[in-house]
Order: sequence, then structure tokens, then C-alpha cells
Amino acid sequence: MPSNPQILLDNRPTGEATLSNFKLVTSETPTLQDGEVLVQHHYLSLDPYMRGRMNDTKSYTAPQPLGEVMGGGTVGEVLESRSTLFTPGDMVVGMGGWQAYSVVTATTAPGALRKVDTTHVPPSYYLGAVGMPGVTAWYGLTSIIQDQPGQTLVVSAATGAVGSAFAALARARGCRVVGIAGGPAKCQYATTELGFDACIDYQQHTDAVSMSRALKLACPDGVDGYFENVGGMALDAVMLCMNDFGRIALCGMIAGYDGKPLPMNYPALILRSRLRIQGFIVTEHMDIWPKALQELGGLVVTGKLRPRESVAQGLAAAPEAFLGLLKGKNFGKQIVKLI
Amino acid sequence: MPSNPQILLDNRPTGEATLSNFKLVTSETPTLQDGEVLVQHHYLSLDPYMRGRMNDTKSYTAPQPLGEVMGGGTVGEVLESRSTLFTPGDMVVGMGGWQAYSVVTATTAPGALRKVDTTHVPPSYYLGAVGMPGVTAWYGLTSIIQDQPGQTLVVSAATGAVGSAFAALARARGCRVVGIAGGPAKCQYATTELGFDACIDYQQHTDAVSMSRALKLACPDGVDGYFENVGGMALDAVMLCMNDFGRIALCGMIAGYDGKPLPMNYPALILRSRLRIQGFIVTEHMDIWPKALQELGGLVVTGKLRPRESVAQGLAAAPEAFLGLLKGKNFGKQIVKLI
Repeated sequence: MPSNPQILLDNRPTGEATLSNFKLVTSETPTLQDGEVLVQHHYLSLDPYMRGRMNDTKSYTAPQPLGEVMGGGTVGEVLESRSTLFTPGDMVVGMGGWQAYSVVTATTAPGALRKVDTTHVPPSYYLGAVGMPGVTAWYGLTSIIQDQPGQTLVVSAATGAVGSAFAALARARGCRVVGIAGGPAKCQYATTELGFDACIDYQQHTDAVSMSRALKLACPDGVDGYFENVGGMALDAVMLCMNDFGRIALCGMIAGYDGKPLPMNYPALILRSRLRIQGFIVTEHMDIWPKALQELGGLVVTGKLRPRESVAQGLAAAPEAFLGLLKGKNFGKQIVKLI
Repeated sequence: MPSNPQILLDNRPTGEATLSNFKLVTSETPTLQDGEVLVQHHYLSLDPYMRGRMNDTKSYTAPQPLGEVMGGGTVGEVLESRSTLFTPGDMVVGMGGWQAYSVVTATTAPGALRKVDTTHVPPSYYLGAVGMPGVTAWYGLTSIIQDQPGQTLVVSAATGAVGSAFAALARARGCRVVGIAGGPAKCQYATTELGFDACIDYQQHTDAVSMSRALKLACPDGVDGYFENVGGMALDAVMLCMNDFGRIALCGMIAGYDGKPLPMNYPALILRSRLRIQGFIVTEHMDIWPKALQELGGLVVTGKLRPRESVAQGLAAAPEAFLGLLKGKNFGKQIVKLI
């Protein structure tokens, strides 16, 4: 069996996460037992939720155990199989973690593997546009925001994996969609490549009131729905622009993951504008995945969803790429290419 | 026609509302035109929403115009009628405002009158338990919190008109219900008279974390639903105790009506606990009123809902009683007895 480079969580961050929280080791992959499959990972997904798991606090997922391989989504190839469900050469999506290989009991959730078609869709897309981030955008849009044609929707972290899928879905469904992103390059990319009608550069604003003025110019009919990935100033600014009966899907609050206080400054607007705000975790709604993946796959095949990827090279680059993701240094879906 | 004492909004508050914002005048009631009815008010309702209308800012209702009679719900008797819909002696509920008499076009909303039965239900109750506050509690409970038997629900301003109706409804539907109120007298009244399983005295706590500890003791199974009338520390404290997939009906944020900043300090809990928070105004849901009033009336007739009233005597006492209401000085539904 091949030797297996792995990245472990060595210790928990106090405040900001750093490279020293991680540790690179090499172990031997065990011999396969009945029902097990050996997968060689081609790509590893890096996602903001992983930062939450590094803390040892109440969260929607169990904390990442110390001294174990960091969890994470992977797409790769079956090398060996002692399961009737998979044969060598199959391309599979799973939760292989931050390592080069994984041995998976083929039927055990959440390690369970799913075979994917890589003829029409590049394999790495199954970690983004037609994977968890895409389905996240779909669920927030359809189940919480409940979009209607002609409405104005806003999404933060606009050029990320969730944001770009959200834009493609919202546009295809007849909505006006406005992004929030950091820096002129991302904002330009959002409007020229991702189909956003407008994009607000939050780095141009030092407070929510200033940012809300820019949003109002970009949303002359107000905001009907907001998909929140960030929290803090962005949430305050959009709430100041929400129309009566607006909906906010709360999917991430990356701005607060380091433990900084992150108050919502205008909660009275929830009452005044009769808003509905709802937090969700897409893995708790597995029933909608097939329908969501079908719509997302259709957008990819027809070219309406052309997600950008930030590709780090090699497992050893994963920690630094992950820390960059938390600071918004990535540009598009952050993945790590492992072979 | 009788001369009519009236209280006008003379000027808008800067910060806290004061007696000098109001002005007592006397005018003549006009001669009735076809379709009009003259009503002598027996009781005037005082409600927190009136404070919001005193400001000239975006809110869910139009601002109270300066120099005009303060708006408000009333119950009274038809003295004269030039409408076929009402006859002298009818007891009617309407939006007569802060005055002794009103002349109403019988069919015009929201001034439209509704005839009520005062044989089985005291007339003043139509301003509280079987009026807007009662229906407010019903809507928040059934449409937003979506109560299930065995769940634990919390309501702030527990001994007020909305809170006491909420408790009776929740208990009758098989829920555990915990109140938040100010001072030992109100808390004792909540548990001994209003049917609360427990009541937290917010005056015993200087911060949300301390208050959340007391709540956790009173809610050993956590909190599934919260009906919010107050905002600020209470909202933070309850959010710290909410179970996953909890619902918060946001009906009032009385703590912020004077324009003080009132942040929500732990919005990341919306995501972590996958909460749904929704603001609402009961007058936008008139379709549910008949069903709600039927359930509330049943609770009154069977003695399960025995609301307490704070009764101010005479129209001139209304401003002071209203300012007291904003500070929590009332004990039960605040009304003004006019005859």
C-alpha cells in the first residue's frame, strides 16, 4: 500500500488560526478489509466551515479532533476495491480529508462515496459548483429566500464557490443579483465573468451606513433577499436596504470565526421591515441534493455557470491556502491539487 | 353634540418621550353625515407600538401626524347612528384614538367598527386578551413559533397583554412556558396567576450571560420558541439558550424605541443553532383574526385566560400611563377608563 502524507490538527487556535496549528505527517495506508475502498485523492476542497471545527466550542458540527487528519471533501479515483459498489478507475466524491489517500468503508456516511461523471464536468467542480457549495447556494436561494422573477438579491463573498453558483442560479431564474466582494479585481470579475448585475467592493467602506449607500445605488428597487456568507458590516449594510418581508439566508459568518465579537447593529429592522432571517447547514437537507445538483449541472453544461478556482499545488500547501481563504485571498473556489 | 376632550401629539420626542410631547384640547364633535356613527369611548388602549409612531422615521406604520389626535384602539357605545349597520346601544371596538368621542364612517378601515358581545366578556378585554394583543400572541405562537406539545417556549414582557395571552395559549396547547418580567411582584404573579411554569426577573441580571444562566435553570430542555416584545439583553440571553431549529417571533423591541442603539450581540448563534427569526405586525394578517379570537374567547370564558389590567382614570391620565407603560410600570394590559 502507498505511504500517505496527511495534515493533522496539532493544536487549537487562540484567536486567529496560524500555520503552527497544523502538522504534516506520513503514515502507511492500511490493507483493505471487506467492503473497503482505497481512493487516491485528485483534489481536496478547502471551505470556511473548517475554521469553526478547529475551535473546541458548540457548533453545528463536532469539533475537529486534535491529532487527527483534518476533515474535508475530496474527489479522486478508486485504486483498489473490496466493495461490490466500486471498481478501480471509478471517479468518486467523498469526505477523504487532508491527505493523499483514504481508505473508506464504501457505504458509511459521511465517508460514503458517490460515483461521479467526469466526462461532461471537470472532477474538481464536484467540490464546488456541483458540490456542497453549489447545493448550499441552491438551498438558501430556493428554500429560504424563495426567489421570484424580478426580485433583487444580494450575496456576500460573491466570487467564492457559493457566491458564483448563487449568481448563476439567480440570473437563470430571472432575478437581479448584486454581489459584495473585496477589491476591484474581484468586483470586476463578478460583473464581467460571473453574471452579477453589480458588485460592491466592501474594502471601499469603513462602516455599514456608507456601504448601504452604495448598495442602494446598485439596488434601486431595494433588496428582497440576501445570502450571507460573511456577517458583520455586510449584514448591517444589507439589512439597511432590505424591502419589507425580505428574507436573509444565513450560511456563514466568516468575519467572526476568529472569535471577534460580531454584533448585528440594527436588529430592530427585523421588526420594522418584517424580515425573516434563517440559519442553515446544507448537510442537514440531503433530500434536496439530487434536485439541486441537477439544476447546477445543467448550468455548468450550458456554460451559464463557469466557476473560477484557486488551485494550491500539493498537500503541503493546504494550510497556507486555507488561511488565505479565511482572509479572502482566494479568488473563486479554493481547492488543492494533490496529483 | 357633546364637546370632546382630545390628546394631540404636539411635538416629537428627542430621545425619551415626555409629557410635553402631548397636548390636551377640547373640540366639538361634528354633526353626523350619512353612514356615520357617534361612539362614546369607554376604554382606550395604550400600546408600545404608539411610541414608534411618535418618531418621524421609517417604521411599519405611518408616523403619527403632529397636531392630530393620537391614534389608538377603543371600545365604546354607539350613541347616535346614521348607518344601517349600527344602532344606539351597540358596544363596538374601533380605532377611536385618544379622545372621549369619535365620529366614524362605519365601513371605513381601519376606523371601521366591530360590534362585540359584552355579556360573556368584559368590554375592556376587547382591547387586550381578545383584541389586538391576544391575536398578536396567537399569530406569533402558531404561525412563526409553530408550537408543538411538550416544547419549551419563552415570552418577554410576560405579564403584559401579549405575554399573558401567550402563556394561556401555550399552556392550553401543552407547552412549558417561561416568562421574563421586571421585579419579583410581576414574576410571582406570572407563576401564581397567569399559569407560567417559571418566570425570570430581568432586574436581577446586569448582562445577558448571567440572565441566560437563570434561563437555563428554568428551561432544562432548552428553548424551542421565543416571543420577543423587548429586545436587547433579553434577546441575547434567550438566544444563548435556544435549541437547534428554534424559532423567534419578533413582535416588539420596546427597549430600543427611544432611539438607543440596541445591537444583537450573538448573531452567529442564528447560524450555529439554525434559528429562524421573523418580525411581524399582526394587522397585516387580518385573515387569521376570526380563528384567533375564537380560541382566545374560549380561554377567557373557561377562565384559562384571566388577564390583569392596569387602569388609568380619565383621558388626562393617558400620557403619564403611556410613559409608564414604556418603562414597564404597568402591570397587565394598560388601558384608560374614560367614563
